[in-house]
Amino acid sequence: MKPFKSLVPRLEALRLIEENVVRINRTEEEPLREAAGRVLAEDVVAGFNVPPFDRASMDGYAVRAEDTAGASQRKPKRLRLTGVRHAGEPYEGAVGAGECVEIATGSPIPRGADAVVMVEYTSLNGGYVEVLEPVGQGENIAPEGEDISRGEVAVKSGDLVTPGRLGAMAALGYESVRVYSRPRVAVYSTGTEVAAQGSELRPGQVYDINSFTLYSVIEANGCVPVMRGVVRDEGKAIEAALREASDYDLAVFSGGSSVGSKDMLGDIVGELGRLLFHGVQVKPGKPTLFGVIGGTPIFGMPGYPTSCLSNAYVFLAPALRRLAGLPPAEPRVAKARLARAVKNTSGREQFLTVRLEGDVAVPVFKQSGDITSMANADGYIIVPMSVDVIEEGEEVAVTLLV
Amino acid sequence: MKPFKSLVPRLEALRLIEENVVRINRTEEEPLREAAGRVLAEDVVAGFNVPPFDRASMDGYAVRAEDTAGASQRKPKRLRLTGVRHAGEPYEGAVGAGECVEIATGSPIPRGADAVVMVEYTSLNGGYVEVLEPVGQGENIAPEGEDISRGEVAVKSGDLVTPGRLGAMAALGYESVRVYSRPRVAVYSTGTEVAAQGSELRPGQVYDINSFTLYSVIEANGCVPVMRGVVRDEGKAIEAALREASDYDLAVFSGGSSVGSKDMLGDIVGELGRLLFHGVQVKPGKPTLFGVIGGTPIFGMPGYPTSCLSNAYVFLAPALRRLAGLPPAEPRVAKARLARAVKNTSGREQFLTVRLEGDVAVPVFKQSGDITSMANADGYIIVPMSVDVIEEGEEVAVTLLV
Repeated sequence: MKPFKSLVPRLEALRLIEENVVRINRTEEEPLREAAGRVLAEDVVAGFNVPPFDRASMDGYAVRAEDTAGASQRKPKRLRLTGVRHAGEPYEGAVGAGECVEIATGSPIPRGADAVVMVEYTSLNGGYVEVLEPVGQGENIAPEGEDISRGEVAVKSGDLVTPGRLGAMAALGYESVRVYSRPRVAVYSTGTEVAAQGSELRPGQVYDINSFTLYSVIEANGCVPVMRGVVRDEGKAIEAALREASDYDLAVFSGGSSVGSKDMLGDIVGELGRLLFHGVQVKPGKPTLFGVIGGTPIFGMPGYPTSCLSNAYVFLAPALRRLAGLPPAEPRVAKARLARAVKNTSGREQFLTVRLEGDVAVPVFKQSGDITSMANADGYIIVPMSVDVIEEGEEVAVTLLV
Repeated sequence: MKPFKSLVPRLEALRLIEENVVRINRTEEEPLREAAGRVLAEDVVAGFNVPPFDRASMDGYAVRAEDTAGASQRKPKRLRLTGVRHAGEPYEGAVGAGECVEIATGSPIPRGADAVVMVEYTSLNGGYVEVLEPVGQGENIAPEGEDISRGEVAVKSGDLVTPGRLGAMAALGYESVRVYSRPRVAVYSTGTEVAAQGSELRPGQVYDINSFTLYSVIEANGCVPVMRGVVRDEGKAIEAALREASDYDLAVFSGGSSVGSKDMLGDIVGELGRLLFHGVQVKPGKPTLFGVIGGTPIFGMPGYPTSCLSNAYVFLAPALRRLAGLPPAEPRVAKARLARAVKNTSGREQFLTVRLEGDVAVPVFKQSGDITSMANADGYIIVPMSVDVIEEGEEVAVTLLV
């Protein structure tokens, strides 16, 4: 057994992760609808103008603007209604001098007209429309190409496909788009005490927790988890797993990164590739390691469920998003008052899970080994290394997990 | 053509939605891994204690606490090492007086021992361990049931399944759990100008945008979109669609809620059920309606792509989450300075889309009909009804969309 040589601060660990994880290159074609939330792998160029024609941007009447000059409530201008122009239906008529055509929002402007009078500023009188306010040329018309012009890059390669961007690609007639593939992430657990759900627990065994929490964090961050099962806590088995792991875009081991005599993951990562850190100044979650073997980032997460999940949020999720080309996750934060004083005597940054009761944050952290520290949490606060105590009633920023 | 009778403020519209949308009752069994992000439909009760045995919470040596009394660096207590207790492996030995057993974190405490000395406070010397600090009874032991005790409700019905709660259910050996089904949401579009991607645009036609943006908002808020295609903008066709819509958990129509002569959705909703509002004091997105027919909430969204999507975020998403039993979405907000002054002369609350360049928010809103108002946006700011202008450089809160 040997203690950790040196612990890296959280920000240094994140910098090492950022430096050593790059977006994958594989791409795939996806039907447009399924592309939401993915990362675009091509520039989407407009093949035509949007809108493809001058169209009415209001319900009303298409007119020649000059015919409305001087119109007022007291002295309306009287125009002959010669037709109705609905969106999407053919219309052959034109608007001549002293004439107008009823038009619905989105409909092409008929020939001859150069403005639309809003219905609110008219009154219908037999076959005539009385215009109560003048309009200028082009008023209430969205000109062809105003939204997107032909040849323009409407959505850029590398952009996250938001609903709005999906809409722009739909407007351009795309049926499918090229996106970056979801990275494949191998998940291994070490430790013979872990039993599969559905089996009977033998004495000394506990059910597997980490592969479930890791699975959901990997999925929620744009990657595909590939569950590789339990690796025996022996040098040969770990080495074989690490060699296989480089077939994936990233690999996560849970358990096996503590300093127990059977924990050799760090040493073997260092032998086969580069061990970038082993031990982080956070509580819980100190025994976390990160390295690279043959271009594949390798994480060794603590075996303890709360430590493992806490560091999956803090360190693994940013790596997964980077690998997938997703923007960093902006946290959702709520302000709250701490229900009771908490001490930080660890000399590390402390991730304190809390339950929210209205605007009061109630600490729920028990032990690193207790999954209820996470299950009962609505979020967590970070107690800085330099802070010994946060007093009852102090305002804290809660990073939400629900 | 007729103008809107009265516009409801946003908060009043949200209150009416909240009052008239309830969580669905259907439930289904899901494999545990697939349950993340779903809403639990049963209390998960612990069938046994977690941990199922007293276990070591540190790597070190299992001892009788009394044997370490008075131990110090200068005067270590010397204990005979009689075995090694690894996690998950059977161990028959007991710890007698003056003895100790090497133990790894997570391993069951051997019979006879009542404390664990951390490896850091020992030194190994042949077959003996020198203990450099005393430990008290129970020290570094996580007692059976400390995390979850038998009979306890570990996760409650109605809870969102977070990774932490998934972990708690895994710890209890669950292979699957009962969750609320995803609500089925019918999406209709009205308007003959809308063409399907893959078809050639005829004069006056534009490609369908709203069914794509609605699809992605519905999926992102825990529901299953069912695309019902285009409904002709005629009374009979709309009535038939509305009658069919009540087979779904919610129905959304896009287009058809403006005040054009062909827009009769509101009237027919009122005839078949209750029309709760028609017209909202927001810009863009005024022509939005909401009602209930036979228990099914019905939304009529504006036909304009940006108005439709903006109100999908503001009004539809909260309804979908309520229907699915999901907690309200806490927005992700970034502070920024406005790149240029914006005016609000609409007399309505204004949703102004912006692009973020560092900490500067650049307005990108063009026209309600322009999907690029959304495609180019990283988020939006809300300009209150009562505010006429926000000056250049003023700090604004940007609700993020990426």
